[in-house]
Amino acid sequence: MFNHIGLIASNRPSPGITQTLEQVRDLLQARQISISYSESCARLLPELAGKTTASDDFCETCDLVIVIGGDGTMLSVAHSICHKNIPLLGINRGHLGFLADIPADEVTPQLEKILDGNFVEEKRFMLSGEVVRNGEVIATGNAFNDVVIQKGNIARLVQFDTYINDNFLLTQRSDGMIISTPTGSTAYALSGGGPILYPTLDALVLVPICPHTLSIRPIVVDGNSRIEIAVGDRDIDKAQLTCDGETLGKLVSGDRIIVSKKETLVRLIHPADHDHFGILRAKLNWGR
Amino acid sequence: MFNHIGLIASNRPSPGITQTLEQVRDLLQARQISISYSESCARLLPELAGKTTASDDFCETCDLVIVIGGDGTMLSVAHSICHKNIPLLGINRGHLGFLADIPADEVTPQLEKILDGNFVEEKRFMLSGEVVRNGEVIATGNAFNDVVIQKGNIARLVQFDTYINDNFLLTQRSDGMIISTPTGSTAYALSGGGPILYPTLDALVLVPICPHTLSIRPIVVDGNSRIEIAVGDRDIDKAQLTCDGETLGKLVSGDRIIVSKKETLVRLIHPADHDHFGILRAKLNWGR
Amino acid sequence: MFNHIGLIASNRPSPGITQTLEQVRDLLQARQISISYSESCARLLPELAGKTTASDDFCETCDLVIVIGGDGTMLSVAHSICHKNIPLLGINRGHLGFLADIPADEVTPQLEKILDGNFVEEKRFMLSGEVVRNGEVIATGNAFNDVVIQKGNIARLVQFDTYINDNFLLTQRSDGMIISTPTGSTAYALSGGGPILYPTLDALVLVPICPHTLSIRPIVVDGNSRIEIAVGDRDIDKAQLTCDGETLGKLVSGDRIIVSKKETLVRLIHPADHDHFGILRAKLNWGR
Amino acid sequence: MFNHIGLIASNRPSPGITQTLEQVRDLLQARQISISYSESCARLLPELAGKTTASDDFCETCDLVIVIGGDGTMLSVAHSICHKNIPLLGINRGHLGFLADIPADEVTPQLEKILDGNFVEEKRFMLSGEVVRNGEVIATGNAFNDVVIQKGNIARLVQFDTYINDNFLLTQRSDGMIISTPTGSTAYALSGGGPILYPTLDALVLVPICPHTLSIRPIVVDGNSRIEIAVGDRDIDKAQLTCDGETLGKLVSGDRIIVSKKETLVRLIHPADHDHFGILRAKLNWGR
Repeated sequence: MFNHIGLIASNRPSPGITQTLEQVRDLLQARQISISYSESCARLLPELAGKTTASDDFCETCDLVIVIGGDGTMLSVAHSICHKNIPLLGINRGHLGFLADIPADEVTPQLEKILDGNFVEEKRFMLSGEVVRNGEVIATGNAFNDVVIQKGNIARLVQFDTYINDNFLLTQRSDGMIISTPTGSTAYALSGGGPILYPTLDALVLVPICPHTLSIRPIVVDGNSRIEIAVGDRDIDKAQLTCDGETLGKLVSGDRIIVSKKETLVRLIHPADHDHFGILRAKLNWGR
Repeated sequence: MFNHIGLIASNRPSPGITQTLEQVRDLLQARQISISYSESCARLLPELAGKTTASDDFCETCDLVIVIGGDGTMLSVAHSICHKNIPLLGINRGHLGFLADIPADEVTPQLEKILDGNFVEEKRFMLSGEVVRNGEVIATGNAFNDVVIQKGNIARLVQFDTYINDNFLLTQRSDGMIISTPTGSTAYALSGGGPILYPTLDALVLVPICPHTLSIRPIVVDGNSRIEIAVGDRDIDKAQLTCDGETLGKLVSGDRIIVSKKETLVRLIHPADHDHFGILRAKLNWGR
Repeated sequence: MFNHIGLIASNRPSPGITQTLEQVRDLLQARQISISYSESCARLLPELAGKTTASDDFCETCDLVIVIGGDGTMLSVAHSICHKNIPLLGINRGHLGFLADIPADEVTPQLEKILDGNFVEEKRFMLSGEVVRNGEVIATGNAFNDVVIQKGNIARLVQFDTYINDNFLLTQRSDGMIISTPTGSTAYALSGGGPILYPTLDALVLVPICPHTLSIRPIVVDGNSRIEIAVGDRDIDKAQLTCDGETLGKLVSGDRIIVSKKETLVRLIHPADHDHFGILRAKLNWGR
Repeated sequence: MFNHIGLIASNRPSPGITQTLEQVRDLLQARQISISYSESCARLLPELAGKTTASDDFCETCDLVIVIGGDGTMLSVAHSICHKNIPLLGINRGHLGFLADIPADEVTPQLEKILDGNFVEEKRFMLSGEVVRNGEVIATGNAFNDVVIQKGNIARLVQFDTYINDNFLLTQRSDGMIISTPTGSTAYALSGGGPILYPTLDALVLVPICPHTLSIRPIVVDGNSRIEIAVGDRDIDKAQLTCDGETLGKLVSGDRIIVSKKETLVRLIHPADHDHFGILRAKLNWGR
């Protein structure tokens, strides 16, 4: 099934991550699966020095990438390899993760099962965000969670017009707006008051941040919608656009922000008995 | 295009509705379109006495039904003819409507354009709700807006388990839950704190009503999901299930409620320049 | 300090409650404090048969009442003895309580400290709710948590006008409204979306239940405000008024509901190191 | 009643403001009331050049200050003269205001009535905010609306501990927190999801901004509470503190922010028939 597997570790080294990395390596070697190591692995296991693959070439030939870390590492790996159409599997060191959903203490039995072919693949989409100024694209980024327009000028509002597929939705004065994938609906969008979207739903949610009026609500639209935001002239000088928390740049009045689904999907591998709702219950403290 | 049109009027007669009915009739007759009248029309225009079509047979041969009234009348007509696959057009007497979106004072120009073929058709889905007791279906209903489980015992909570496609979601203690279509997302679900769903989105939203815990949020799932609710034993004696506000019956502990998409869709006809967001802005008082 | 103490137990007997009751009795007897037993105690300890005090006379001479149960028992005792100006102390069997805040497993050390004089007294107010029909008061009740007007007709709204000190506030169409004390702000009002009020704050909060418009928010007013609600004629036939969950009666169109602070306060005794915020953190799962 | 009145105009000149200023001046002169003009008046009426009073000395001898502008101007004047215990009256040019509540087109009749003694005085409190670093107060400010701690590092959270009167409330990770007076409860705090506080209520509300957990709610505490916020070390490098939207400075890890009620109150003069709820209804679009 999986003959060549890439291993990527978190950039925040810890003894736990090193231990899981060794455990995964040993398990793969015992099965005679060939392994590519990212440079992050060599920081954890000195004997890998000189044996790693540069990130550009990484996983060219892999048919699975295993990520050891947390949701942050998963996000980062999704960004770097999303265009290569390789499935991702996340092993969690730390808190329970939404994306890295194999707990470190279950890594051996879960990984055995997955390598035996006992898994499910889930396809999730990413967003592309771009800033258009005077008719030219001046910045682009990708987002697995969300594209966020946000005031940078503390204590002032931003004002912008939103269009969905070229249809005017509304003019908004607020602290900003979150345009979130289903994956991101349990991240910042949730803090902003948004609903939870089932992860494979083909939809986007627009969540206003502290809107100036009480009558705006989060809006869920088709995942193929093209969102366009025209930045108004109200105190906009320091507003910023971020993709998954990375700043794409400062915005000026008249900028247009275009958000749309990327073509390539993120392929997540889960154990066959993967229970998304169970993770949701655990993370949100539902129930007793 | 449309050769045989059925006319249905609100059951709450008013001079305005009578006037619009006459206007529509004259316009259709001038175009030599054949007309079927519902019994509600004869209550408004006595000369139609004896010339109406019984509701069972109504619109067997129609290729369009025009409804004169408000969203309530549209809901009711959608219920009665949804299985017949005939397009619906709503003319609004009264407040601006989400479903009946042609204002009465624009009826002539708008209707002319639509009859000339200048229109769009929007497909929306309905829900089926059923109550299963001891393995038998004891009640069924349809909903264009929402299926609602609600406490009937004032000042007590209901408790129930929710499953999505047989996967356990959560146990909830609350005043109830709204399972809403995109159409219903601007109705009761919005009062309950739910997001707005674009009307043609293939999704359902589950909105808890006054949940006992702060950590439950509205959840948006695929429109083809099968929602099952297992009624718990906590103070359930007077809980009820409603479909679009009509009571389907009282619930007892152990009842299972099944909600799923109906196969037949509601076909709404809109003027070609239909602006759903414009209606949203007007109804929710967005903007200046 | 406390020479004569009344003991009241929950009406839901359990071995744990019996055990705590014995423990408290032994501790008080060891200190030669005289004890009055409520009838609920005799249901737990048969040897008290014939030695209990009727609820009307109960605690006439007590200078402290100890309640063994949960917040529900505390609410009920507050109702029955609030006019007698006797301090209450709650020992919790079961979940952590907001009102019954001494955990059963700490009863001995905590009670020793309190009987030694090492305690704080907290004064909380209750509400009086009354229904006025045709100029006559037809029903009255008291509430430690909340007075609630609520639709009884499933799937319909109620409509009513609210006045604060005779000043018109707003007309509301909704599922109802919660008028809550600070004590009740962590109960039903919280489920309805209300803020948390510090328990000794001299304020009331009005929380609309599923309002038909997005622009209504919970409103906090002075604790001495006189709230008057004039019941409108929209689908009101089955609306009800409840005080702490007890139904005061059905409402008809034209009824006026008056809510105001009661004169006598509830006196709660807490250990000297009582930490209200700690209880809040524990009950609402803050932190981690 | 009022023998010496100070006039202050908005710093954003407009023909309407000039016209209202002339109208008020003429009305006061006709009543032989002596007038002090702020420098902002001379920018509107050139004949006042050289006849204005410097802001430091302004209104030393006034027994009323009339402000012509909007809520922003009222906020600014409240800041500059709050320590002088002089009543304020606001005449609104522009949108209906919460603070400047006399509409420009009613200025003559309303002002006549007020000068005749037909008015009410409302006392509102302000907050003092200060930043303590290494035991020293390094910045202080006043707020009529709110003191706000807010992330400055786009797309990161701040983390801080909140204490009320030295009692630990909670550790919070969020975009920030609003500490609002009742006056400010209809401003930014409302956008953040806070309740409305009646303007003369002696209470503060703490409103978290986009908290990382679902279980935090706005909390209302006594107006005399001392709020202390200990800034944590999470991504705090660019967090800021603002008072009524003015930046007090950047925060670093370990800073302590102290917020408490100022001693001097703002005295607002309203027409005798002042209807705060009417303003609320108009501003929030309540009702029809």
